[in-house]
Amino acid sequence: MPQSWQDLAADKRARLAQTIPDEWKIRTLPTDDNVLDFPQKSGILTEAELQITESSAAELVSSLASGQLTSVEVTTAFCKRAAIAQQLTNCLLEFFPDAALTQARELDAYYAKHKKPIGPLHGLPISLKDQLRVKGYETSMGYVSWLNQHDEHDSVMTALLRQAGAVFYVKTSVPQTLMVCETVNNIVGRTVNPRNRNWSCGGSSGGEGAIVGIRGGVIGVGTDIGGSIRVPAAFNFLYGLRPSHGRLPYAKMRNSMEGQETVHSVVGPIAHSVQDLRLFTTAVLSQEPWKHDSKVIPLPWRPSESDAITSKIKSTGLNLAYYTFDGNVHPHPPITRGIETTVSALQKAGHAVTPWTPYRHDFGHALISNIYAADGSADVTRDISASGEPAIPNIKDLLNPDMKAITMNELWDTHLQKWTYQMEYLAKWREFEESSGRELDAIIAPITATAAVRHDQFRYYGYASVINLLDFTSVVVPVTFADRAVDKVDAGFVPVGQLDQLVQDEYDPEAYHGAPVAVQVIGRRLSEERTLAIAEEVGRVLGNVVAS
Amino acid sequence: MPQSWQDLAADKRARLAQTIPDEWKIRTLPTDDNVLDFPQKSGILTEAELQITESSAAELVSSLASGQLTSVEVTTAFCKRAAIAQQLTNCLLEFFPDAALTQARELDAYYAKHKKPIGPLHGLPISLKDQLRVKGYETSMGYVSWLNQHDEHDSVMTALLRQAGAVFYVKTSVPQTLMVCETVNNIVGRTVNPRNRNWSCGGSSGGEGAIVGIRGGVIGVGTDIGGSIRVPAAFNFLYGLRPSHGRLPYAKMRNSMEGQETVHSVVGPIAHSVQDLRLFTTAVLSQEPWKHDSKVIPLPWRPSESDAITSKIKSTGLNLAYYTFDGNVHPHPPITRGIETTVSALQKAGHAVTPWTPYRHDFGHALISNIYAADGSADVTRDISASGEPAIPNIKDLLNPDMKAITMNELWDTHLQKWTYQMEYLAKWREFEESSGRELDAIIAPITATAAVRHDQFRYYGYASVINLLDFTSVVVPVTFADRAVDKVDAGFVPVGQLDQLVQDEYDPEAYHGAPVAVQVIGRRLSEERTLAIAEEVGRVLGNVVAS
Repeated sequence: MPQSWQDLAADKRARLAQTIPDEWKIRTLPTDDNVLDFPQKSGILTEAELQITESSAAELVSSLASGQLTSVEVTTAFCKRAAIAQQLTNCLLEFFPDAALTQARELDAYYAKHKKPIGPLHGLPISLKDQLRVKGYETSMGYVSWLNQHDEHDSVMTALLRQAGAVFYVKTSVPQTLMVCETVNNIVGRTVNPRNRNWSCGGSSGGEGAIVGIRGGVIGVGTDIGGSIRVPAAFNFLYGLRPSHGRLPYAKMRNSMEGQETVHSVVGPIAHSVQDLRLFTTAVLSQEPWKHDSKVIPLPWRPSESDAITSKIKSTGLNLAYYTFDGNVHPHPPITRGIETTVSALQKAGHAVTPWTPYRHDFGHALISNIYAADGSADVTRDISASGEPAIPNIKDLLNPDMKAITMNELWDTHLQKWTYQMEYLAKWREFEESSGRELDAIIAPITATAAVRHDQFRYYGYASVINLLDFTSVVVPVTFADRAVDKVDAGFVPVGQLDQLVQDEYDPEAYHGAPVAVQVIGRRLSEERTLAIAEEVGRVLGNVVAS
Repeated sequence: MPQSWQDLAADKRARLAQTIPDEWKIRTLPTDDNVLDFPQKSGILTEAELQITESSAAELVSSLASGQLTSVEVTTAFCKRAAIAQQLTNCLLEFFPDAALTQARELDAYYAKHKKPIGPLHGLPISLKDQLRVKGYETSMGYVSWLNQHDEHDSVMTALLRQAGAVFYVKTSVPQTLMVCETVNNIVGRTVNPRNRNWSCGGSSGGEGAIVGIRGGVIGVGTDIGGSIRVPAAFNFLYGLRPSHGRLPYAKMRNSMEGQETVHSVVGPIAHSVQDLRLFTTAVLSQEPWKHDSKVIPLPWRPSESDAITSKIKSTGLNLAYYTFDGNVHPHPPITRGIETTVSALQKAGHAVTPWTPYRHDFGHALISNIYAADGSADVTRDISASGEPAIPNIKDLLNPDMKAITMNELWDTHLQKWTYQMEYLAKWREFEESSGRELDAIIAPITATAAVRHDQFRYYGYASVINLLDFTSVVVPVTFADRAVDKVDAGFVPVGQLDQLVQDEYDPEAYHGAPVAVQVIGRRLSEERTLAIAEEVGRVLGNVVAS
C-alpha cells in the first residue's frame, strides 16, 4: 500500500532533522520574534566561525585564495550557522554537511598541491534554492510527489559553480508551485523571517532569503519569474539580482510548467552587497555558460559597461527616473517613504531623479498573470494531486477548477501582445531620454506594496511581475525599516480598486514596525553590469553598503 | 460585388507594370535561358551606370561619402537595372523609382549642406523582401487577400536603414506562405534565376536572390526560418548571412503565423561579398536596434571577435569541421564536390578541417517541420482562402486538411525537446574541441541537396532548417558551378529512404550544368563577427572573393 502524503512528508522531515549533528542542535529554542542575533548567542559557533559567517563573500574568496582560510574552516562555519538557521526559520529542504566537508577537503587538497585556487569561488559555500539539482540529492521543490527521487546530474548552474570552486551544503525551501511570494509547503511547512518570525521571508526563493538574511549563507541562488528573487531579498534587507533572460544558465533545473517560454524564469543571486552579487555573476560568466546552456547569450562580463556608470557618477551624475505607485495598488506608507528617502539621497548626491509614468502596468500585470495560468494550472495541479496532498491556501485562486488552458493560437497572440507592450515601453524610455536630453540610466521603483509582509497577506506581485514581462534587469537594494513613529496609516486614503483597498487595510504600523523596506533599480534588458553599478551607488548614498 | 482574386492579381500586375517608365522597357525580350549579362547589352544603362551597379556596396558608400557619386546617380542606376531584372526574372512585388529618387535628392541635399553623409549607408539603394514594411507601400507577401493595404509605418529594420541613409526602391517577390524554397505566388507568378530561367532563384527571399544576382541590387534584405536567406544566396552565387535570433531587428514586419516563437524567423543580408554583408550588419547595429525592438540583444558589432579569427588565420590556422551528408538526404554530386573542393582548398591554406558527425539531424528536421505546421496551417490557410486564390502546388503537403493544430502543452513539450537537442549539440561541439585540443571555429556543410534547383523540384530543406533549430549563425559562401563533365550520376547510389531516392533521381548533369554550388559556414549562436570572418577566408581560399 502506497504511503500517504502525510507519511511521506513526515519521513522527509525526520530525514532532514537527522542531518543536523547533535552538537549543532540548539538546546533551548528561543521564543523571540526576532532571532537574527541568535547565532552569536548560541554558543555553537566559535568566535572565528562567527567572524567567517559575518564576512562578505568577496573577503572570503580572497582569504581562501591566499590560503589564510581553508575551505573546511569556511564550510564548517556556514554548515553550523545553516543548522541554526534551519532550527529558527525552517528554511531547508536538504542539508548535507558531510558531503560539503568532503568537497571542502578536496578543494583544500587541491590548493595544497597547486598553491592556487581552482576557480573564482574556490572553497566558498553557496546555498541553492531547491530547484537546482545537485547530483545525489532530492529536488522535491515542495511537492510531496517529487520526494525520494535522487538527481543523477547537476543543473548547469550547479555544475558551473562547482567548476568555479563552490561548495554545496543546503537546498532551501520554496512554496508549493513556486508561484507565491511566501514560502509554505506541505513537506516542511512554513519558512519564516529571521528578523521577525511573524513576517514572511518572501518567496518563492524564500529559503534563500531567510538563510542569507541570518548569514547561514553568504550568497544564495534563487530564481525569479514574478519577483521570486527580489521579494525575498527585499524582505530580508538584502540585495538581489534578477538578470535578464539568457544571461545566466537555467538549464536542467527542475520546474513546474516546463516548456512555458512566454515569460522565462531566470536564475540569480541574493547577497548582502552588490560586490557579492557581482562576484557571483562574474564567476558564473567566467565558466562560459553559453557553451553548456543554449539559451545563454555569449556575453562575458563587460567591465566597460560598469565603468561607464562609474564615470558618469564622477562626472555628470546619473540620470534616473522613479515612481511610487504603479497605478494598480498603492504601496504601504513605509514603501512610499523608502522611495522618497532613496530619491532624496540620490538627488543630494548630485544625481538627476525625475518622475516616471508607469506605462499600462494594469495591462502588463494582467497579461503576465494570464501567462502564469496559461495551462489552466494543469501542470501544478497534476504534481500536487499525484500525492494526494492539498494545495496550500495561498494558491487557491491559482487552482480555480473553472480555469481553462488557452489554445496555442491564443498563446501566439499573447506573444504578440507581450512583444508590442515591450516595444511601447522602449518607446517611453526613448521619449524620456529625448525630453531629458540624455540617456536614462535606470528607474527606481517599489518591488512590493508592503515591507516584509505578515504571513498570508502577500496579495499583489505586480511591482515585480511587470519587470519580468519587460525582461528588464532589476536589482533590489535595501533602504530602511518600517517605523510606526513616522509611517502612519493614511487616513485620507482613496483606493483605485478593491485589491488596493484590501492591501492598504492590512497596513498596521505596529505589526510592521522594523520590517525591511527595499526598492528595485530597473535597467534596460541585459544591462546587468550597469544596473549593478547603479544599485551600488544607490546603496552608497543610502549609507547601507554593508547591511547587517 | 467583390473582385475575384484573379482580378485583384491582374490589377496588381498592371499597376506594377506601369511603374516601369517606357525608356527602361526592354524592346525585345531575350529568349535565352541565361540573362545574367543582358543588362550590359540592353542599352538602357549608361557606361557609368553599369559601372555603378557592378561596384560593391562598400565602394559605393565610400564614393557617396566622399562626394564622388551622388545618391541620385546611384539610385538611378539601380532603378534602371532593377527594371531590367524585373522584366527578365519577374522578381518584384513593388517598384517605386520616383519615391526612391525623391529620397536620393534629399540625401544629396543633406550632403551638400552638411558636407558629410547622414549615416553609414548614405545614399545607397537597398532592396527589401516583401515582408519589410515601407511607409506608403503594400506588403502583400504574395497573398492576394493582402493586396491594396498600404502600410502606415516602416518596419523597425526599414526605419533604421532609412536612418542610416539607405534608399528604398523595390520590394521583392516571395512564395505564397513563405514556407517554400522557391518563389511562386498567384499575384505575379514565378520568379526565375537570371543564370538560367529554368532554375529557381530559391526562396523564400527569392526575389532578393534574383535581383542581387543580376545586380539590380547590391545588398538585399531577406528573412530565414528554414533557409530562406541562404538558399537564394546559394542559388544565385551570392553570400548570405543568417544571423542568430536577436541580433538584427525583426519587429513590425509582416508575417504568417505571427506569435510563433518556437523557432524564430530572422532577418539578414544577401550580397556579393562578405565585405558587403558586414557593411550592412555594422550599419544596422550602429543604429542601436535594441532600443527599438525588444527582442534585439544589446550587442554592438564586436571588432575583437572578428580580429580573433584574423589572428588565428595568420598564426595557427582555423580549426574547422565538415560534413557532406546529414544522414537524411544525400546531396547531388555537384554539392558533394563543392564541399570537397572547399575542404581541400582550406587544408591547402593550412587550416585543420576534419569530419563532423551530424547529430540526429533526422530528429532535428522532423522537430522543426512539426513546428512549422504547429497550427495545422490554420493561419496560412485563412490568408489564402480569404481571397479565394488556390494554394500554390509547392505547398500542397503543408496544407493537408487532415492536419491538426497541436495543443499548448504539446507546444511546451516541443520547446523542451528543442532546448534538449540544442544542448546535446553543444555537448558534441565541446567533445570535438576536447578531442582536437582546441576551439572549433566553424562547420562547413551543404546548404541544399542540389545546385540551383529546377522548378518545382525543391524537396528537402533539412540542410538549412536544422541550423535554424539550433539557432547557429550561418553564412553561405558560393563555391563553384555544376559541371556535367565531372559531376556524373552516381550509378551505385544507395538511398537511405524514399525522399533520398527521389531527390537523387532528379539529378540530371545536363539540366544542372552551370548551376551555382555553395556551402554554408556554421558558427556558434550569435557568432556573426567570427562566422563572417571565417566565410571571408573560405571565399578567399576558393579564389571567389569577388563573385561575378
